[in-house]
Amino acid sequence: MHATHNSRPHVVVLGAGFGGLTFCQKFAHPAARVTVVDRQNHHLFQPLLYQVATAGLSAPEIAQPIRSILRNKPNVTVLLRQATGFDLARREVRLGEDVLSYDYLVLALGSVTGYFDHPEWEACAPGLKSLDDALRIRRRVLLAFERAENTADAAARAQLMTLVVVGGGPTGVELAGAFAELTRRVLKRDFRQIDPRQAHVILLEAMPRLLRQFPERLSTRAAAQLARLGVEVWTNVRVETIGDGFVQLADGRRIESANILWTAGVTANPLTRQLGVELDRAGRVIVHPDLSVPGHPEVFAIGDLALVRDRRGQPVPGVSPAAMQMARHVARLIEDALTHENASPGARPAFDYFNRGAMATLGRSAAVAQIGRLEFSGWPAWAAWLLVHLIFLIGFRNRAAVLLQWTYSYFTYKLGSRIITGLEGPPELATTAAGGREACPMEKKAM
Amino acid sequence: MHATHNSRPHVVVLGAGFGGLTFCQKFAHPAARVTVVDRQNHHLFQPLLYQVATAGLSAPEIAQPIRSILRNKPNVTVLLRQATGFDLARREVRLGEDVLSYDYLVLALGSVTGYFDHPEWEACAPGLKSLDDALRIRRRVLLAFERAENTADAAARAQLMTLVVVGGGPTGVELAGAFAELTRRVLKRDFRQIDPRQAHVILLEAMPRLLRQFPERLSTRAAAQLARLGVEVWTNVRVETIGDGFVQLADGRRIESANILWTAGVTANPLTRQLGVELDRAGRVIVHPDLSVPGHPEVFAIGDLALVRDRRGQPVPGVSPAAMQMARHVARLIEDALTHENASPGARPAFDYFNRGAMATLGRSAAVAQIGRLEFSGWPAWAAWLLVHLIFLIGFRNRAAVLLQWTYSYFTYKLGSRIITGLEGPPELATTAAGGREACPMEKKAM
Repeated sequence: MHATHNSRPHVVVLGAGFGGLTFCQKFAHPAARVTVVDRQNHHLFQPLLYQVATAGLSAPEIAQPIRSILRNKPNVTVLLRQATGFDLARREVRLGEDVLSYDYLVLALGSVTGYFDHPEWEACAPGLKSLDDALRIRRRVLLAFERAENTADAAARAQLMTLVVVGGGPTGVELAGAFAELTRRVLKRDFRQIDPRQAHVILLEAMPRLLRQFPERLSTRAAAQLARLGVEVWTNVRVETIGDGFVQLADGRRIESANILWTAGVTANPLTRQLGVELDRAGRVIVHPDLSVPGHPEVFAIGDLALVRDRRGQPVPGVSPAAMQMARHVARLIEDALTHENASPGARPAFDYFNRGAMATLGRSAAVAQIGRLEFSGWPAWAAWLLVHLIFLIGFRNRAAVLLQWTYSYFTYKLGSRIITGLEGPPELATTAAGGREACPMEKKAM
Repeated sequence: MHATHNSRPHVVVLGAGFGGLTFCQKFAHPAARVTVVDRQNHHLFQPLLYQVATAGLSAPEIAQPIRSILRNKPNVTVLLRQATGFDLARREVRLGEDVLSYDYLVLALGSVTGYFDHPEWEACAPGLKSLDDALRIRRRVLLAFERAENTADAAARAQLMTLVVVGGGPTGVELAGAFAELTRRVLKRDFRQIDPRQAHVILLEAMPRLLRQFPERLSTRAAAQLARLGVEVWTNVRVETIGDGFVQLADGRRIESANILWTAGVTANPLTRQLGVELDRAGRVIVHPDLSVPGHPEVFAIGDLALVRDRRGQPVPGVSPAAMQMARHVARLIEDALTHENASPGARPAFDYFNRGAMATLGRSAAVAQIGRLEFSGWPAWAAWLLVHLIFLIGFRNRAAVLLQWTYSYFTYKLGSRIITGLEGPPELATTAAGGREACPMEKKAM
């Protein structure tokens, strides 16, 4: 690696999500240089990923090349690479066969979809973490409706027109609400043999209520708003198994569905296992209050990857505002350490999480929000959600394009991103759809 | 196929490009029903495809779901299927194992990239015909610059930073101009180890001049404008062979390049070979003056697929205005035939092509245009090109989003669509790039 032989202090940042990117933007020390490593060339505005999956936005509208965002930071080098291991004692990160030496290391690798002890469910119930995930879900669902239009078999058609979202957290309710709008409003006049309004959108939650991060009153309101949009909300249901085109529940019920989506679990990036330090059950690094990794005061973990507690002893949630606050904290700590080289790591201030609130959108004019002690739902919460998300979208163009598209969608319901790409070769839909139960294998073929 | 048993006259249209879609929009007969078959779910605005390949526009901005465009045509059924063969005697189209019967058949399947007698060049020199093609080219070129940033080997770096466009027709000059702008302007500050402005963009043309559809004066101006943008225009050069990371010319010169794009030939959709009728060397159906297929007055070929001559005996060019004019002609013929059932096919009027002119854009404020006897170049031609393309883009949203993006790009040069998707798994760029000569296989791996 030609960038490592240099006497300037070197800070290596792994991951350019909200945490890693904020660190690169905020860290400012004249002597140090920063290398940020990500396996994608873009930063992703994760909170809007569900809109790409449900054909409301196009992929570039919620992503921005990391190089463009950091082009005015001459001390930052961007590497499109994947970290594959660590040697914390030698202060090295492995990138395949290459090695990157650091003086300070910031771990901001985020989390991945977690299936608890059922990794085999992933093929039939994809999660939503990357742009490729979102494009795959979009393709799968849009193709299912094409197949339903092409089949005369009533059971196969019902299976193709049933969408199941597993997990009633913010991503789950947003996906379910958006799919209800897609089928009820957007697609309603597009087909001749089927009526997309008769599609079933089922949201499964194991706990007694949705959105348990929110006050109970808002959970109730969210469920009512989702029901009005056409979502069937099933709480207190446990998934026993997920297979090729079906979900089997613990209470004996079985749902036949060609479109099963998983939002019921996340787990820290599996690279944390290569660190050789203590992790919690979700794979997160159990960090010191200053966010450093025990035994390694020059290594920090931020964002979803870190388990740290707020003043009330509660774990800081894996949300983007927390990741950005942690990034600023670590940027200041490293700046201080570089300026005062003899300072003791023990004297560092602890990270203090400031919870600004939480919001989740359910559909057109439907949302819930909690900001401090204020609780909103319906239109005011939706307006607040819109405002906050537009303000935080990085880059002028995206913000304007997203606003334009949302305004247009709001007034017309004609979502513009219903394009299926990646159909290399003939899809030959009806032939495979006739089999009915082959949802996953046939999907893999079509992708 | 549940849609075929019906006593109403049935018109089957294969392909929803400019020809097929215009037919569906213009054809109006109260008794007839229309089925349009396409293997993609979207109509593509082909003239702007090069902008997707060069990261200027995102895919949904130049594509629209066929179902949405035709949602207000209740007599039109859209099938996402691929035609696989014909039985013209029995008036049937085969779709895999299914059969679609017709009373009238409109062939509007367009053309594909043609490599003359060298199909083996396709892997290393992709063409630009579909959205997937454009996204693949974008990914390949953007990854090449990432690899160049990651390698210290000067020869490998030069190869990664050389772009070769084979073919000096409209698509070739547009691609070359856009790539020159991408490297000279857009990417110039994104990297730390390489200077994208030192990339070579080479345009190869076998004939003595570019754009031979245009008057010679405009060809000269186009070459001068391209040179100013940074394109190296090589005319009178014949490609002898294209291999893994190189182009060998007949004059002995060899260009090392990891980014070779082919725009030097098109050939009619290979399905025409299944028709059992006479074709020209490019696979086009040699139609009667009324656009019907010889021996089959109920079958028509329109667009790139048809060889028909204008009043001066010249073949009608394979451009979208010609396809749309042919579609209107055939729509009227079939309407007439359905209204006057005893009319003789021999009495049908001949198709008459009205040539409105031609234009090609080369970059920011650079274009050539010929409208009737008027010839423009530079800024006025560019403004005319912009206007015409915005007017013809189907669908309000796309038009507004494209205008927004162009305006933004024009003033800032920060192209917003530089997102690489489809990077499943670790790209591990430097490791493979170090080999240098492995451009095509390593690209296949990364895709």
